[in-house]
Amino acid sequence: MSRERQEKKEWDVRASTLARNTHNTIRNIVECLKVEPNPQKELIALSIGDPTIFGNLNPPEQVIQAIKDSADLHTSRGYVAAKGLLEAREAVAEYSAHQGDISPNDVFLSSGCSHAIELAITALADSGQNILVPRPGFMIYRTLAHGLGIELKYYNLLPEEQWKVDLDDLESQINDNTAAIVVINPSNPCGSVYDKEHLSEILDIASRNCVPIIADEIYEHFVFSGHTYTAISSISKDVPVLTCGGLTKRFLVPGWRMGWVILHDRHNILEKEVRKGLNNLSTRILGPSTLIQRALPSILKYTPQSFFDEVLLFIENQAKLAYDELRRAPGLKPIMPQGAMYMMIELKMALFPEFKNEFQFVEQLVTEQSVFCLPGKCFEYPNYMRIVLTVPEEILREACQRITLFCTEHVTYENRKEKENADIAATNEIPIININLSRLP
Amino acid sequence: MSRERQEKKEWDVRASTLARNTHNTIRNIVECLKVEPNPQKELIALSIGDPTIFGNLNPPEQVIQAIKDSADLHTSRGYVAAKGLLEAREAVAEYSAHQGDISPNDVFLSSGCSHAIELAITALADSGQNILVPRPGFMIYRTLAHGLGIELKYYNLLPEEQWKVDLDDLESQINDNTAAIVVINPSNPCGSVYDKEHLSEILDIASRNCVPIIADEIYEHFVFSGHTYTAISSISKDVPVLTCGGLTKRFLVPGWRMGWVILHDRHNILEKEVRKGLNNLSTRILGPSTLIQRALPSILKYTPQSFFDEVLLFIENQAKLAYDELRRAPGLKPIMPQGAMYMMIELKMALFPEFKNEFQFVEQLVTEQSVFCLPGKCFEYPNYMRIVLTVPEEILREACQRITLFCTEHVTYENRKEKENADIAATNEIPIININLSRLP
Repeated sequence: MSRERQEKKEWDVRASTLARNTHNTIRNIVECLKVEPNPQKELIALSIGDPTIFGNLNPPEQVIQAIKDSADLHTSRGYVAAKGLLEAREAVAEYSAHQGDISPNDVFLSSGCSHAIELAITALADSGQNILVPRPGFMIYRTLAHGLGIELKYYNLLPEEQWKVDLDDLESQINDNTAAIVVINPSNPCGSVYDKEHLSEILDIASRNCVPIIADEIYEHFVFSGHTYTAISSISKDVPVLTCGGLTKRFLVPGWRMGWVILHDRHNILEKEVRKGLNNLSTRILGPSTLIQRALPSILKYTPQSFFDEVLLFIENQAKLAYDELRRAPGLKPIMPQGAMYMMIELKMALFPEFKNEFQFVEQLVTEQSVFCLPGKCFEYPNYMRIVLTVPEEILREACQRITLFCTEHVTYENRKEKENADIAATNEIPIININLSRLP
Repeated sequence: MSRERQEKKEWDVRASTLARNTHNTIRNIVECLKVEPNPQKELIALSIGDPTIFGNLNPPEQVIQAIKDSADLHTSRGYVAAKGLLEAREAVAEYSAHQGDISPNDVFLSSGCSHAIELAITALADSGQNILVPRPGFMIYRTLAHGLGIELKYYNLLPEEQWKVDLDDLESQINDNTAAIVVINPSNPCGSVYDKEHLSEILDIASRNCVPIIADEIYEHFVFSGHTYTAISSISKDVPVLTCGGLTKRFLVPGWRMGWVILHDRHNILEKEVRKGLNNLSTRILGPSTLIQRALPSILKYTPQSFFDEVLLFIENQAKLAYDELRRAPGLKPIMPQGAMYMMIELKMALFPEFKNEFQFVEQLVTEQSVFCLPGKCFEYPNYMRIVLTVPEEILREACQRITLFCTEHVTYENRKEKENADIAATNEIPIININLSRLP
């Protein structure tokens, strides 16, 4: 024993760097909100990316029955291969044929799409390297990368061009330490859906710079009329693509934690190390529940198209409803989505001088109208807020009316610096409460 | 763009350090086995620590019904708190009251016990630090630690003292970089169950050196008659304990991936950073399936004691059967377990000079008798092999008889160096096949 250790008498147990540096950005930001809803009005949370909360959207009977049938099988209770049961991976390969030619060996089942994203990032990127992510974008990437010392670099999306990628900005962000480009399509939070031509432009940049793509396509097939979803992997000539997907939103079971990574690699670029790396990583926590893996082939094959069509029609109608309501609200500029289940709304902050930023705007919106929208800061994008479209129609309509009322009451075309300061002071006195933090995405 | 990057024309995508350095030791060792079973005899795998394979052990009806009931709830499909549903954590706290005074806030649900162990290790240990693990021991620790640059140091268990910890060895392994001591009780692979006095001795060492304990108690309550399981946390005065557990083997649903970490910390030593660190880490993959979390309170409360008693009685009888059969086999010394579901068997290698090590012994046992046992190397412990006790009685009996026959045919009390060399040469010519690799361990 060293002399130092003998002198050590007091407990001093620290958390690891990984544990200290893993943060859920959205939760942290929301926890900083100082909000108490108006007791006269029931709280409407348009913040939570979970379509199951209100009970208005449910999976079809076939999905529930598949789980019950699985529960009766004694083969639904034991261990399976770390990357997943062969029959389940075969079913995912078949279900995902639009992405390209897939062998079951290219499929790695995961504990939800977050775990799929973790597998993809940790397979490709080392501490000190960086991955490029869109801004605005879904912040799970930050949660997963930062703790491992992987840097996030942001490339801009263009709101005036339906959130297309700023291609020059994207290419300028690539450097020798870039391990992957993340492409989210259809997009959370923007609801954009890229056409083939734009996806080709992104692929050209990846190809020129020899950087693989992580394709977050969890909202695949969530596309409104007049738009077409194309899997980026299906048109890649040489760029290796790791596509992350899962049952989650499309089957209305996000909590079931059934996701997957699919490896697309026409030129065997990932054979050198990455395929083996993914196999290795999948042995860490051994993937999703066997109970759900056994049900997966039935779920993927027997869920009727009519179910998907109905859900999608509902969300599209909700998008139209919210867009029509909110574009009339003074000071707001909603951007009509082309897919997914969200809408981004620009706040013309110059017309709301009493609020220093969109953060104060959404705080006060809760305080007065009991409507909670996520501030753009949650997506590294100030002056915007995001709403979720899956709540029941009458609730969404009520929320839009309250938002419009709030804007009407607060919009101003003159400088009201004094009132602003007074409001900030007043806001700071409101006690802190948490709004449904436990169900945040 | 730098000049270097412009010159970069070729794809060279590497896997991350984490991906390259994550290895499942057991799989790697088993893949190196060169074995083809005897085509005249059906293969009996005594290697796989999964009690559900043969279909002879099944969860009680209450457990299956709880899942079916959960599937019907619309609240079983959405997101819940990253550390788990409050009702589920309350149920775990109540179920685990023998471990000490637990609040639901001390419970972190995980995707199986492997994930629980990952949470515990990654919360406490940084790259460059070390954790102490028992030898022989379950090798998931190596799989999880090595890729993150966390060193494993081994402390010895004493086979002649029912696998008690060599306390001097344990204390001598501790240094300034030791982040945790792992205590596996009841033990995989040894089947040992430590009494209170011995656990106190271990706690004294941890206390003197101010090192927290990770208690792997996934086999809690798996204790044969005449022995008593004590949760190490229940008798800790100051040492913080992170106890890893889950439904898995006890409820015969290891593939459901329902585990947990429970934080025991009477003196608030972990309040400084580690509790928050665990909260942070639980946001990475968002825990087990909500479908199973919703069922957890019913499963934990309504599974009848008679079910546990029957399973345990079966395993104890199997242990006696195997012990009685194998202690008569020449050259073998089985060690009667006190709990869990495994038995370690010493191979008196001096009596089998034709085999260079226990690895060759188990290879040839497959080749001739189609019985597959895990070589001690899988647990960093040569000259032993491990068998699983949960296979049906008639299969276990048949396996023991074949092992005995094999020993009788190969035991020798003279030096047979020439035959050994010939056999090694012959063994090397056997083509490589994989035995049930997909279901290990």
